[in-house]
Amino acid sequence: MLDVCLLGTGGMMPLPNRFLTSLMCRLNGKMLVIDCGEATQISIALLGWGFKSIDVICFTHFHADHVSGLPGLLLAMSNSGREEDVTLIGPQGLNHVVNGLRVIAPRLPFNINCIEITPDKFLEIAQNGILTAGFQISVSKARHQIPCFSYRLDISRKGKFDPERAKSLGIPLKVWSTLQKMGYAKLDGVEYFDHMVMGEDRKGISVAYCTDSRPTKFLPEFINEVDLFICEGLYGDNDKKEKAAEHGHMIYSEAAEIAKAGNAKELWLTHFSPAMTNPKEFLRNARDIFPKSFAGYDRICKTLTFEDEAK
Amino acid sequence: MLDVCLLGTGGMMPLPNRFLTSLMCRLNGKMLVIDCGEATQISIALLGWGFKSIDVICFTHFHADHVSGLPGLLLAMSNSGREEDVTLIGPQGLNHVVNGLRVIAPRLPFNINCIEITPDKFLEIAQNGILTAGFQISVSKARHQIPCFSYRLDISRKGKFDPERAKSLGIPLKVWSTLQKMGYAKLDGVEYFDHMVMGEDRKGISVAYCTDSRPTKFLPEFINEVDLFICEGLYGDNDKKEKAAEHGHMIYSEAAEIAKAGNAKELWLTHFSPAMTNPKEFLRNARDIFPKSFAGYDRICKTLTFEDEAK
Repeated sequence: MLDVCLLGTGGMMPLPNRFLTSLMCRLNGKMLVIDCGEATQISIALLGWGFKSIDVICFTHFHADHVSGLPGLLLAMSNSGREEDVTLIGPQGLNHVVNGLRVIAPRLPFNINCIEITPDKFLEIAQNGILTAGFQISVSKARHQIPCFSYRLDISRKGKFDPERAKSLGIPLKVWSTLQKMGYAKLDGVEYFDHMVMGEDRKGISVAYCTDSRPTKFLPEFINEVDLFICEGLYGDNDKKEKAAEHGHMIYSEAAEIAKAGNAKELWLTHFSPAMTNPKEFLRNARDIFPKSFAGYDRICKTLTFEDEAK
Repeated sequence: MLDVCLLGTGGMMPLPNRFLTSLMCRLNGKMLVIDCGEATQISIALLGWGFKSIDVICFTHFHADHVSGLPGLLLAMSNSGREEDVTLIGPQGLNHVVNGLRVIAPRLPFNINCIEITPDKFLEIAQNGILTAGFQISVSKARHQIPCFSYRLDISRKGKFDPERAKSLGIPLKVWSTLQKMGYAKLDGVEYFDHMVMGEDRKGISVAYCTDSRPTKFLPEFINEVDLFICEGLYGDNDKKEKAAEHGHMIYSEAAEIAKAGNAKELWLTHFSPAMTNPKEFLRNARDIFPKSFAGYDRICKTLTFEDEAK
């Protein structure tokens, strides 16, 4: 199962009652964060999942409201006793931004590995994704004022063990458990592989996160069939489409169109303009298009489970 | 009159109910901030004095909890329509730190003037202070893990106009008002200066701000007779003196000793350890030494007036 928490739902600046948009995911005790603006660490403290197990931090882009909280977050992780390497993923320039911000966090008790999505690397990453901490991470080019990426996280699930097949192939009972857990076993000089006895991969869990961006032609396919689509809606009011577009953002109805076209299961809207004091007010504009639309709020959480897996 | 607000009272990291230690002062519509950690801008938003009139930002030192909020604050000032120059004051390395952090705030609609308190400049600044936006700013070397300064703000007050003296000197009534306001007047080729008719300077208003530091031998004189002494007390418990000292900090009783020795009018304690959940609990340890000690809390405010000036 995958725990998902939207740490904040604001855009531009942190507000007294609305932190900046950021996503935290927890899988088998490992955690991944996407975006980290000023004060994101306060929302993490309120959530209570801790700082120590944050293995990966992804950045959509380098506008301050998505990255200014990085030095504070790294220091909070350091104070929590983290010593294992941390992976940072973001657009080209990631090293430059991280080095700049680390002027106030020069010494950390862990190594930082930066993966820059350079134009050269983009195709490779788009094709194969990045597998880290159990998360299969894919990216899609967003359309914003500066280079920006949308993220998709897939948690894969192996097929079921087929005992009838194992019996018919004469695989000794002794190695069944090892074979399922490790994918490989050896007994009396004979090798056994999991593909011999495992059914096809079962449906996994998937989440997509898109902010800041205009709608793109890639998005419906990129988010295809995700369990949860988290997407910006700077404004809810349909009349503000042009204003949103001017700044490389979208409105609720545009996010809902993408959710519908991509056949997402559920949509959480986020990255609300500070001028929009009640994000729920315009929810109908999304629901008329995609009924399972929700206005995100700080620390809205959901546990996504595999099919037929108990919560 | 001078409005003073302690925006936060925490040390190390911003907490859900305690922002990082930072001071905001407002004088004749101009504002000065000392220290600016992550999320300080949220406390400023809660305070409601606005961002546009922040003319000066001072830094005690460059540990992240005193400076990480700078890019966000500069952007909030930019969003508020600020276009006038902003002065930053801090230890040597200020330009390096500001340039590093501005990797995420490269374009601003105002100029930034950095005043670095280099060893060369220290003596000059210590002697003459820096007069900006109506604040007479002095600094004193603190004793911390890295170079750090305490700040003192003095608001001077001219003497009273002496009409009897003006009459006896034959100064024409016509120039009295100009002379009081501008300090100089000229009529029919004759020059008049304010020292001819103004009494001695009257007592001004003063505030001192000291964090992070061990007690120093300079502090009692530096804070001499201040109306308000804001001083760190990482811990209240007397038994934690050694622990505080190890990290270049002090405890309540040490702050109170300085307030007493310097004959301050009032002491606000701040920069509390995240481990200290109830800063009031140990207040007696300060009050036994200096009765007018108070445990600061987020956005504690006070208006300091000149003697005989109505609030």
